[in-house]
Amino acid sequence: MAYGLLKGKKGIISGALDEKSIAWKVALKAKEEGASIVLTNAPIAMRMGEIKKLAEACEAEIIPADATVVEEIENLYTKSMEVLGGKVDFVLHSIGMSPNIRKGKAYGDLNYDWYMKSVDVSALSFHKFLQVAEKMDAINEWGSVVALTYMAAQRTFPFYTDMAEAKAMLESIARSYGYRYGKLKKVRVNTVSQSPTKTTAGTGIGGFDKFYDFADKIAPLGNASADDCADYVITLFSDLTKMVTMQNLFHDGGFVNTGISEDVMGLLD
Amino acid sequence: MAYGLLKGKKGIISGALDEKSIAWKVALKAKEEGASIVLTNAPIAMRMGEIKKLAEACEAEIIPADATVVEEIENLYTKSMEVLGGKVDFVLHSIGMSPNIRKGKAYGDLNYDWYMKSVDVSALSFHKFLQVAEKMDAINEWGSVVALTYMAAQRTFPFYTDMAEAKAMLESIARSYGYRYGKLKKVRVNTVSQSPTKTTAGTGIGGFDKFYDFADKIAPLGNASADDCADYVITLFSDLTKMVTMQNLFHDGGFVNTGISEDVMGLLD
Amino acid sequence: MAYGLLKGKKGIISGALDEKSIAWKVALKAKEEGASIVLTNAPIAMRMGEIKKLAEACEAEIIPADATVVEEIENLYTKSMEVLGGKVDFVLHSIGMSPNIRKGKAYGDLNYDWYMKSVDVSALSFHKFLQVAEKMDAINEWGSVVALTYMAAQRTFPFYTDMAEAKAMLESIARSYGYRYGKLKKVRVNTVSQSPTKTTAGTGIGGFDKFYDFADKIAPLGNASADDCADYVITLFSDLTKMVTMQNLFHDGGFVNTGISEDVMGLLD
Amino acid sequence: MAYGLLKGKKGIISGALDEKSIAWKVALKAKEEGASIVLTNAPIAMRMGEIKKLAEACEAEIIPADATVVEEIENLYTKSMEVLGGKVDFVLHSIGMSPNIRKGKAYGDLNYDWYMKSVDVSALSFHKFLQVAEKMDAINEWGSVVALTYMAAQRTFPFYTDMAEAKAMLESIARSYGYRYGKLKKVRVNTVSQSPTKTTAGTGIGGFDKFYDFADKIAPLGNASADDCADYVITLFSDLTKMVTMQNLFHDGGFVNTGISEDVMGLLD
Repeated sequence: MAYGLLKGKKGIISGALDEKSIAWKVALKAKEEGASIVLTNAPIAMRMGEIKKLAEACEAEIIPADATVVEEIENLYTKSMEVLGGKVDFVLHSIGMSPNIRKGKAYGDLNYDWYMKSVDVSALSFHKFLQVAEKMDAINEWGSVVALTYMAAQRTFPFYTDMAEAKAMLESIARSYGYRYGKLKKVRVNTVSQSPTKTTAGTGIGGFDKFYDFADKIAPLGNASADDCADYVITLFSDLTKMVTMQNLFHDGGFVNTGISEDVMGLLD
Repeated sequence: MAYGLLKGKKGIISGALDEKSIAWKVALKAKEEGASIVLTNAPIAMRMGEIKKLAEACEAEIIPADATVVEEIENLYTKSMEVLGGKVDFVLHSIGMSPNIRKGKAYGDLNYDWYMKSVDVSALSFHKFLQVAEKMDAINEWGSVVALTYMAAQRTFPFYTDMAEAKAMLESIARSYGYRYGKLKKVRVNTVSQSPTKTTAGTGIGGFDKFYDFADKIAPLGNASADDCADYVITLFSDLTKMVTMQNLFHDGGFVNTGISEDVMGLLD
Repeated sequence: MAYGLLKGKKGIISGALDEKSIAWKVALKAKEEGASIVLTNAPIAMRMGEIKKLAEACEAEIIPADATVVEEIENLYTKSMEVLGGKVDFVLHSIGMSPNIRKGKAYGDLNYDWYMKSVDVSALSFHKFLQVAEKMDAINEWGSVVALTYMAAQRTFPFYTDMAEAKAMLESIARSYGYRYGKLKKVRVNTVSQSPTKTTAGTGIGGFDKFYDFADKIAPLGNASADDCADYVITLFSDLTKMVTMQNLFHDGGFVNTGISEDVMGLLD
Repeated sequence: MAYGLLKGKKGIISGALDEKSIAWKVALKAKEEGASIVLTNAPIAMRMGEIKKLAEACEAEIIPADATVVEEIENLYTKSMEVLGGKVDFVLHSIGMSPNIRKGKAYGDLNYDWYMKSVDVSALSFHKFLQVAEKMDAINEWGSVVALTYMAAQRTFPFYTDMAEAKAMLESIARSYGYRYGKLKKVRVNTVSQSPTKTTAGTGIGGFDKFYDFADKIAPLGNASADDCADYVITLFSDLTKMVTMQNLFHDGGFVNTGISEDVMGLLD
């Protein structure tokens, strides 16, 4: 069901890898809700066959950009404004990658070059998205910027290793830049802290399936799906949430505030 | 602008005192977004001339209920389901009162009978709204319950005295009942922690104006208005936020996460 | 091992029921560390045979007081100052009781008179301890007041029912009164949020044993014991923590910030 | 006054620049409390005249180490264990530096190479201290590791720019490694979030003096001094806090939980 919540709005959506991606769902919903969008991803991360399907469904152009490279982000905004015919109203940052996780390095045996790579890709890229936008004045007043994050920024999940730190940094950037951009141009910046989600990226983390089931048993509503998350992100892009900024918003079926659930107590018998 | 976000939904809205009330704005928006609603307030708190205007504008019935009395809440749900033709989909709790604040008692000189009254009216009433609803099975699956709160639950504002404790309790009830009702019926329960707002209730608190200005200078987007709050509450009643529960959601223009602002630093010269 | 951390200090310790009580351990440690103390408990809660043993070990007087009755708290401070020869330097609040838990009422079937009783005994009593102390000027400058609490104030544990709300209120009182008393007399007020502990009170809660084991498996250091807690409380009474106030301090072996542990993941196989 | 709290313990203290440094005070107190210590600092940051005075006062050796270089940290632990005659019991991390702040770059004009430098020096160095210690098994069971941090990790202070992100990462490392090291060796890891402090490093931040006064007016006990902080850190190194881990502990006179103070309201007239 569509409401026209983003009618006339223009946006940039990063991170749609395949149809399991949250960003993929956000792109589809944004289109349904009336927005014109541009899709972006790192050249190296794009599965061209896949993202072209999404681009067609959304009538969207694809503008590749390595989110760690300032010049490529400048190009992304320049081209997006050309294609969309003006400044953008919303941006989704859904970008994260940890070589240490990919290579199975334990938290006590991290490779520090890879750590810096995790930080650069997963967190600093968000600052670059914002700083470049500000310098180019590429976001309309009352625009909305959302980044996807995970609760490992607050609590320890042993398998999440250096992504915990990257997410903590990402959420800090949302606060710091939310203050700045709010003051300057009324642009709001928030993060959405989503349930473990069966995306291609998520399931690459060791122990993911077991943890997914645990989270599903703790949260009274169960884990939130990628579709649910897209719905929520749409509300944050809409004009109905103009005064919400610098927040980390849990979208997790109630996981974060549940100490223990009856279902998990049942497991302990 | 209306989107039809609450089309076909039924709801109960408490606490609309006059046109400055947040609840008043929520009622109007809910109607605009397609909902059928019932209005309620304590007989003693109702300014009948005022609320009748709202009732007309919303084509809503008024069902008086003292929110501290279980039987009156039972009556509220019974009548609401009759009038609305079925179970409700959303409930707004916007009820608070502190005799200690009204009488200007300092936090070191509280009257404890009044303290209990503050708690009963401002917090326990929320549990009663929920427990009665559960027992009567008065809320549809995936329903949404929202209570309005204030950041004094987390941080001290000297003039807020025992309402700080009442709000801390209110937010705890949202978590506890959110877990329970989520598990039982997928009903979500959240609180919205709103900027200081120039309502008739808000401005009754000593030092309010000065604090209002301070908060407005800290928050990068300034204080959120009652209208803004109503917009946000609508998103929480909609189907787009189904997996958000047990949360205290700050709606404050960025106040809560701003340590100090340039505007306030300017004051210190 | 003793260090003389409380040498020359005077204090009041409430809530020592039997030798499993945290308060019991605090009393013994405070004595060891050089303090002179007074013991108090509700007449109804005292097991006289037990507490007399403690009083002997601590060379302490017992001054019974119902913590819900202002006059009895006044008497407690008056007598304490007589016995101890001056104002007190520290106070331990370790008082909590929920008739709803005792009677096994579910959170969706709470008795509201009992709810008010839980609040009065477990939370409001803390305000009374502080307000009476302030009015009588019974605490020395730089004094330290500590109340014991539990993480149910932040997250839901289904079996904890209305004590979650009482603890949320208790922690709010610590912040509110900590601000006030700090400003007035440099007195600090904090809460310690302790691991589930095998006290006589703790083990009365349904499902306690199972939850105790779960918590022990989550926390990397395991659950903190009553003895550990007493050690920690001593540091908060000492002069080494003079600038810590209005805090809720987790003393839980790392539980609160652990999302999932390897031990719990092992259980899910 | 000394209590012998660290009698027989061995520790490493980084970051003592001059006698205003918190680390300097910690070193002196640790010595007074009975510990044997080693001092370390980056060769480039050492003011040799100054630190030699401290070394003499503490009967401590100075082992220079660049905290961003794994080999130098390995050397630090090796030499420390030689000098101290065994594994260490506590470590203080008091290391931070932002080229962006030094060069006065605004948050919307950050130099990203410098950003990475801020992160490497101020946060990743903490992980290196821990990972190297674990690999070398250089910390005794029940050892205690503390890093100094600042509340900018939670809230925005415009002048703090990229150090906000570095501190958010630092605190996340404390949680992540606290879990790991707790499980492995019962070593606890915490951060202390200190009031703005008139150290040589602190006063280098633009707008510091004005902010210092503001914080002093908000906190009911006023700002905590470097001496106060040293006292508090000593308690965290002692055996009385063995079950406190993965925590960020505010040591700030009550600032963090004060929404507004009467003193600040007075300024607004």
